[in-house]
Amino acid sequence: MISKLIDAIVNKKAPIVVGLDPNLKFIPKHLMDEAVSDKGETLEAAGAAILAFNKAIVDATCDLIPAVKPQIAMYEQFGIPGLMAYKETVDYCHEKGLIVIGDVKRGDIGSTSEAYAIGHLGEIKVGDKAYRPFDEDFATVNPYLGTDGVKPFVDVCNKCDKGIFVLVKTSNPSSGEFQDKNADGRPLYELVADKVREWGEDSMDGSYSNVGAVVGATYPEQGEAVRKLMPHTYILVPGYGAQGGKAEDLKPFFNEDGLGAIVNSSRGIIAAYTKAPYSDRFDAVHFADASREAVEDMIEDINTNTLVDL
Amino acid sequence: MISKLIDAIVNKKAPIVVGLDPNLKFIPKHLMDEAVSDKGETLEAAGAAILAFNKAIVDATCDLIPAVKPQIAMYEQFGIPGLMAYKETVDYCHEKGLIVIGDVKRGDIGSTSEAYAIGHLGEIKVGDKAYRPFDEDFATVNPYLGTDGVKPFVDVCNKCDKGIFVLVKTSNPSSGEFQDKNADGRPLYELVADKVREWGEDSMDGSYSNVGAVVGATYPEQGEAVRKLMPHTYILVPGYGAQGGKAEDLKPFFNEDGLGAIVNSSRGIIAAYTKAPYSDRFDAVHFADASREAVEDMIEDINTNTLVDL
Repeated sequence: MISKLIDAIVNKKAPIVVGLDPNLKFIPKHLMDEAVSDKGETLEAAGAAILAFNKAIVDATCDLIPAVKPQIAMYEQFGIPGLMAYKETVDYCHEKGLIVIGDVKRGDIGSTSEAYAIGHLGEIKVGDKAYRPFDEDFATVNPYLGTDGVKPFVDVCNKCDKGIFVLVKTSNPSSGEFQDKNADGRPLYELVADKVREWGEDSMDGSYSNVGAVVGATYPEQGEAVRKLMPHTYILVPGYGAQGGKAEDLKPFFNEDGLGAIVNSSRGIIAAYTKAPYSDRFDAVHFADASREAVEDMIEDINTNTLVDL
Repeated sequence: MISKLIDAIVNKKAPIVVGLDPNLKFIPKHLMDEAVSDKGETLEAAGAAILAFNKAIVDATCDLIPAVKPQIAMYEQFGIPGLMAYKETVDYCHEKGLIVIGDVKRGDIGSTSEAYAIGHLGEIKVGDKAYRPFDEDFATVNPYLGTDGVKPFVDVCNKCDKGIFVLVKTSNPSSGEFQDKNADGRPLYELVADKVREWGEDSMDGSYSNVGAVVGATYPEQGEAVRKLMPHTYILVPGYGAQGGKAEDLKPFFNEDGLGAIVNSSRGIIAAYTKAPYSDRFDAVHFADASREAVEDMIEDINTNTLVDL
């Protein structure tokens, strides 16, 4: 699966992913009004508004980008109707030729981790019929429970040609509380990075492994360190834009082949119409056009400042 | 919310929780056949069979137990129909007076963690109407992202009188890969335990905090150590029974007041009819009666061997 993602990144000259993390605060009023007039003030209306919002952004940007990363929490907060909108978003993005990274941060042990892996990346049988319940292409995974938690995901990836990104060093201010702890003389996130490389050794798909890592744009030094520890690991990089990560800081996340990293932006793209410079020229009705322009600007920013040559 | 759980534990003299982690492998054939004849070989049929299975076990045991712990992964693997069965299970358990610990192991940062917390423990507004999407009473939370990830859950708990159990030392064999690492001279899980105590200080509800911890029955020495670090923290203890944890090992998890721990068993109870000694006397049709007997045996085992006096 990672080779498909790389092909899409190279074809579109865009090592970026758009985070589809809808929030009612920035869903334009006309979409919410339409959903509420149809379904009342219900969770179903929230789901419908979210789906309409996502579809418009996907329509406006899908020729420019290789992938999207829906954050399942933003859907799960609306219960079943929210999760239905999540699933419909995944399917719609696939119809539009996009690769879908499910930002689910799941992780448990043994058969329980296997169940998550099956639900998001694999196939389940009921009698003789097989189903792919959520069917994202990649999922994010939490490593706190160790190999017992991650290995079942890797097995499903190997079986179904899917991929994962394992949390190594997250973008948030308090990520160091545990991740930076000096463990056996090295920060814990480096030990996790070593394990990610190890877990991915039997999942090579071209020059990179289907087992990737998450390292925040807000920590470029740590990005440089783990880049060296995991030369064949693709890094999903959150934290660009709204969280403070700058394109200049992203160089260390890439390999010399210009590959090895894909940078996420969520609010910076999907809520572009609410913020300068886009808010000067786009109103809420034209939110998706603002998102397209924000995507163009992000691609230029990253390609120029990281000197990535795709 | 922890005071409600404690009251139920004391009233029923049962510091235990039944893990509702259904697996098609041990759902009795007659339930699956009925669901398939009604809905075909579909995810909906799997959801219906799971729900029927859960309801029978809850009916047979609800007078004996304070709480249940559905493991959401086992439902999520069936996609939306599975998650609908999860939600219906939560509601049914509430109808029967049980406290519901959603074993969801969620964790992210900031507004994303808040979204998970709202979805599982809180309330969300659509226009003027408020909804409680999944509405469990407790949720399990992964600490890898630090305070940014856990604090939004604590805030929702404080607002809605709910609780969480944060993973400290998990029951699986590889839990030590990261959790046991010597960090600043102490194992990492002890640093997490310190943080759990700290996060819970403003969430006291009687003698205990609404912020609890997860520590596996398979690690009694570590249980003893963290028990002392977190005197007002309730410990949810998985790993008893099928995973190898024995009642004699559970003493260190309890405080001298006989409180402080609640022990989970999943397969040992819900699949009791498939294993000795219950399989000698119960067939698949009477699976719920076997579960009741397994609950009675577990309560006696724990109350006798941990010398807990409730």
